[in-house]
Amino acid sequence: PSRKRQQDPPIEHDLFVSLEEVDKGCIKKMKISRMATGSNGPYKEEKVLRITVKPGWKAGTKITFPQEGDSAPNKTPADIVFIIRDKPHSLFKREGIDLKYTAQISLKQALCGALVSVPTLQGSRIQVNPNHEIIKPTTTRRINGLGLPVPKEPSRRGDLIVSFDIKFPDTLAPSLQNQLSELLPN
Amino acid sequence: PSRKRQQDPPIEHDLFVSLEEVDKGCIKKMKISRMATGSNGPYKEEKVLRITVKPGWKAGTKITFPQEGDSAPNKTPADIVFIIRDKPHSLFKREGIDLKYTAQISLKQALCGALVSVPTLQGSRIQVNPNHEIIKPTTTRRINGLGLPVPKEPSRRGDLIVSFDIKFPDTLAPSLQNQLSELLPN
Repeated sequence: PSRKRQQDPPIEHDLFVSLEEVDKGCIKKMKISRMATGSNGPYKEEKVLRITVKPGWKAGTKITFPQEGDSAPNKTPADIVFIIRDKPHSLFKREGIDLKYTAQISLKQALCGALVSVPTLQGSRIQVNPNHEIIKPTTTRRINGLGLPVPKEPSRRGDLIVSFDIKFPDTLAPSLQNQLSELLPN
Repeated sequence: PSRKRQQDPPIEHDLFVSLEEVDKGCIKKMKISRMATGSNGPYKEEKVLRITVKPGWKAGTKITFPQEGDSAPNKTPADIVFIIRDKPHSLFKREGIDLKYTAQISLKQALCGALVSVPTLQGSRIQVNPNHEIIKPTTTRRINGLGLPVPKEPSRRGDLIVSFDIKFPDTLAPSLQNQLSELLPN
């Protein structure tokens, strides 16, 4: 009976990519070291694997390099698999093809309908709330097309979703509280 | 070789209980109808199963009544299993042994540090914010012992966690906005 050559299960590595890299796509070079077999016996070799990360790739995407694991006689080398992971970003959170950003604003800005300057992943800043509407704790604004590229159609993009963290004062002088109490609606 | 009598898989029913019932415990009477076998052949019978729901029981708790399913010759009747489910409550959400409540307050109440009257599952109301502190969108207050009973130790209880939904005005007159702009800190 024919016997299949033995192969170990795939060797998986996490491959962390930043949102900027997901945004534009990038090439990652990953150095691996593996055992090879030569005429003088086994030896260790280093190798660089190139991974082309396409714009919009999701966390969890797997890229397989067949038979790049350790080589040994009578054995098929294992596959090496890289799994795309999101590198945490200091400003944005990924949510599918959308990006989420939370703008810190003061209560005064919220009530006076301030223009809010918001960063974008692509580098420029945009002005949110041009109509000077009151911003509530539950207010969100969707900025069309400033999210991440759609993987199958990278010219289309998700949205940038802006929410607001309204900083309330920790304390207010009693006289000020009295004035506010008279000014604000019930 | 000995043969085991055949038994169908358990018949599962959801048993919805209100938070009030979980709070105090209760007895649920569930009417089932099943096929029985008599000397004149099979007949349908109705039966009432009593389930004693103990204080603090969690959703997902299973209560099994062995062999209360349809009876037939040469067959072991199936077990009947009731699975405790939470009936949604209009005021409180369950979170383990804690209860969550969201109080609706006005911006004026928030900034002026109003006392807020909060209902409890047990029926009475309590006053929250006795120190008249400013209430922020992220403020929560834990009221010790006003949650649900701990299942194994029903004299101990979880907390009532109060959060606040601060209603901002939809619009403010420009003159009022100017005044607020001068009064509020940056």
